[in-house]
Amino acid sequence: MTTLSRPITWEQFKKYLKKMKSYEEAIGLIYWDMRTGAPKKGIENRSEVVGELSGELFKMSVSDEMGAYIEHFTSPEGSKDLGDTDRRIVRECQREYDRSRKIPPDKYQAYVVLTSQAEAAWEDAKHSSDWDSFRPYLEKIVQTNLEFVELWGYEGHKYNTLLDMYEPGMTVEKLDEVFGALRAQVVPLLAEIQKSAHQPDTGFLKQTFEKEKQKRFSLYILEQMGYDFEAGRLDETVHPFATGLNPGDVRITTRYLTDDVNSALFGTIHEGGHALYEQNISEELLGTPLCTGTSMGIHESQSRFWENVIGRSRPFWSRYFGEVQKTYPGQFDDVTAEGFYRATNEVKPSLIRIEADELTYNLHIMIRYEIEKALFSGEAKVADLPELWNAKYREYLGIEPSNNGEGVLQDVHWSGGAFGYFPSYALGNMYAAQFTRALQKDLGDIDALVSEGNLLPIKAWLTDKIYKYGKSRTPNELVLEVTGEELNPQYLVDYLRTKYSDIYKL
Amino acid sequence: MTTLSRPITWEQFKKYLKKMKSYEEAIGLIYWDMRTGAPKKGIENRSEVVGELSGELFKMSVSDEMGAYIEHFTSPEGSKDLGDTDRRIVRECQREYDRSRKIPPDKYQAYVVLTSQAEAAWEDAKHSSDWDSFRPYLEKIVQTNLEFVELWGYEGHKYNTLLDMYEPGMTVEKLDEVFGALRAQVVPLLAEIQKSAHQPDTGFLKQTFEKEKQKRFSLYILEQMGYDFEAGRLDETVHPFATGLNPGDVRITTRYLTDDVNSALFGTIHEGGHALYEQNISEELLGTPLCTGTSMGIHESQSRFWENVIGRSRPFWSRYFGEVQKTYPGQFDDVTAEGFYRATNEVKPSLIRIEADELTYNLHIMIRYEIEKALFSGEAKVADLPELWNAKYREYLGIEPSNNGEGVLQDVHWSGGAFGYFPSYALGNMYAAQFTRALQKDLGDIDALVSEGNLLPIKAWLTDKIYKYGKSRTPNELVLEVTGEELNPQYLVDYLRTKYSDIYKL
Repeated sequence: MTTLSRPITWEQFKKYLKKMKSYEEAIGLIYWDMRTGAPKKGIENRSEVVGELSGELFKMSVSDEMGAYIEHFTSPEGSKDLGDTDRRIVRECQREYDRSRKIPPDKYQAYVVLTSQAEAAWEDAKHSSDWDSFRPYLEKIVQTNLEFVELWGYEGHKYNTLLDMYEPGMTVEKLDEVFGALRAQVVPLLAEIQKSAHQPDTGFLKQTFEKEKQKRFSLYILEQMGYDFEAGRLDETVHPFATGLNPGDVRITTRYLTDDVNSALFGTIHEGGHALYEQNISEELLGTPLCTGTSMGIHESQSRFWENVIGRSRPFWSRYFGEVQKTYPGQFDDVTAEGFYRATNEVKPSLIRIEADELTYNLHIMIRYEIEKALFSGEAKVADLPELWNAKYREYLGIEPSNNGEGVLQDVHWSGGAFGYFPSYALGNMYAAQFTRALQKDLGDIDALVSEGNLLPIKAWLTDKIYKYGKSRTPNELVLEVTGEELNPQYLVDYLRTKYSDIYKL
Repeated sequence: MTTLSRPITWEQFKKYLKKMKSYEEAIGLIYWDMRTGAPKKGIENRSEVVGELSGELFKMSVSDEMGAYIEHFTSPEGSKDLGDTDRRIVRECQREYDRSRKIPPDKYQAYVVLTSQAEAAWEDAKHSSDWDSFRPYLEKIVQTNLEFVELWGYEGHKYNTLLDMYEPGMTVEKLDEVFGALRAQVVPLLAEIQKSAHQPDTGFLKQTFEKEKQKRFSLYILEQMGYDFEAGRLDETVHPFATGLNPGDVRITTRYLTDDVNSALFGTIHEGGHALYEQNISEELLGTPLCTGTSMGIHESQSRFWENVIGRSRPFWSRYFGEVQKTYPGQFDDVTAEGFYRATNEVKPSLIRIEADELTYNLHIMIRYEIEKALFSGEAKVADLPELWNAKYREYLGIEPSNNGEGVLQDVHWSGGAFGYFPSYALGNMYAAQFTRALQKDLGDIDALVSEGNLLPIKAWLTDKIYKYGKSRTPNELVLEVTGEELNPQYLVDYLRTKYSDIYKL
């Protein structure tokens, strides 16, 4: 590690970090543009622009200058005047720095090339259900990740190091515990639901819905949630997403299916939840690496809280179903708010994760978690995956893919090497249920608020307890502070059992 | 000048230039986004992102590394294997390098601050017609530009150095000659037109036109011109513009006024002309500083060629007026193609440049040119400007502003220090008329092509003669190559006299 020739000041370090954030923001905008409407003939060159800027950003994150800052601000002398937030900024930089410096640049470069080839190969393979054409890529990607884990180091299970990238502090030990508890109660609940004679009628969800009307309703619901349109915008894409460029510019996209009113509706609420988080991070964190959500799991807890806990609740539809009827005149005349509520909560085992309901979704995640864990412990080989996948779907969901395209090849994540990411989705559900309990303690009867369309106090509570902190709390600290205990899957189980016992009259 | 420690290669220089172009492209996209729909609360931070990236780009353009490349590739040894295009790349970098290195950084920094404050002050001043509040800014801007000219050096008139920034090779001597000839013939022509008993009826242009229909027609006309929608897109802004991010991504914007069908129509064709230029630059120039239009004047010749020579021509409306009628059912039933053609060519002295017709537009420009020239020769002082402005409007156009807001304060250019820019607009008209003559020689009866809606051969000719070269020809070389002579204002005069004698039956 070298030192800088000039004396190191905190101001100077903040300026350096701000520059990095500027690059991130520019790259974020380019990605948003590429996905929302950049002309296709410009994409190739634009990708090179992204390459240049990302390359610079990476260099800054591992530079000798960064090393000198970290060395200085972690020393007793350099750190003595730093506040808590400042120390966390340094720690965050150090995490990134250490991780990146441990990988030899040529190895990393080769991996970038590999994953970009693998993503293209995956797309073809999924399309033609051709597992064998993708398998060699996946084998190399797993192999490289295993090498990276060795370089990064690990405690306990090798997979812990990967989990930690998306959910700092999360471990196999903890996940086994919470997923185990969840599974033990969700699987029997699902069986009961399937046997129930009270299946909801969902036929009216499948009519023709004008895109313009869907868009109007999406904008309306976002406004109700307190999404700030002066700090964001809504666009249309094939795959919905939210992107926080800075807290004053948090954009979301949705997808309008003219034969399915729910896709845009719940997609918009989901992305709106992500966006509320990013829009309400404290201004103090602007320009620092803490100015973003604290983890994938906590982020997902916010999208799922708004989508499921609020958006798929009875009081929500008692308030908003009339608006649905007004938006689509004549299309819901024979439907009641209660009927709409029940229909949007239909539980049905399915093969495709992204189409799964709130309950079975968790099982899709556990399957992926168990497979990833087995890959990194050496208990499973890539070649075993299709068989393992299908067996687990049979076991957990009672159904089996008819081909690998709708089975082991369905998700993009592995082709990009994102092992350790999937658990975030289920963690999000668990965190959401646990936060909800704390919210109810503080605000009292939130059902009353929701049934009045009074959602802003809920947003304000979330801002005060979660959003404003950005990454200046770890997920674990946040959960402890907000709920008084560590992650506990029982809240989700209780929530699911109560909700679905009622809907399915169990 | 320092030399690089590694041996200098052309590949390495190209890579350096490509990186600069990547920054330019990212900055261009951010500006496009800010003008088309970025949420307002994100703008302040976004401006800092632009500042970071622009700062990096500027540093690259004046770096010691750039200096070493230029030194090497202009030396006999280093330049001996370079082709013509390569030498022009080096020359272009050198132009920029020399200009920037001659200004002391603190002086330049102060100027950036000054102009950004001046632009804000100008906006207020224009709004309240308050010349005195803007005058001190303008005095400092002119003073600083005079100092810059001393540092840059000049031949003949000091203003030449400023002209050269927008129109390489252009001089006061040349402009005096061409503008003199133009003025001598346009002013009497205008007088004749004003006396004519055959004034066109324009009432039907002022109806209510639905925005969606205007948009559809704009898209239709662009497609007819050969604008490539896979390499561009059309959006809506208050001030229309075209921006070439790379030849595969050239975006345009237009403005829809519901009480004026012409604004979007001709605005779209105008920006479409700029866009055709940028879309059709040769791929060989991609990633080099030559991958853009060669000058402001030549660029403007293309927007004005499409807008006026094609778009305001009789054969154009004999072909497309039926489409206008179809687009706005019932709104043009009593209008003929000939009547529409005449209405879109109404000549009428007016106070506002951007609303002027094809003929009087040139007089607006000459007024600004003469004022700028006088400022930089010392014949006029900033304090004299309102009086000078009004006197010239009386003299050239026979009308006078009732306040400075619609007079000397109407344009943004001076507040940003863009002296030497205005002549480009009139040069564009002259170049366009001169190119048209060459086009007619090569393609024969272009009226026949236009009246058939067969515009693509025209686009192909322009691509082959002008567009593909980008900045690898100087404006003067281009005009010489394409037309066989230097810039000659007589083509524009002849075009205007023929066209308007016919319309106004002179």
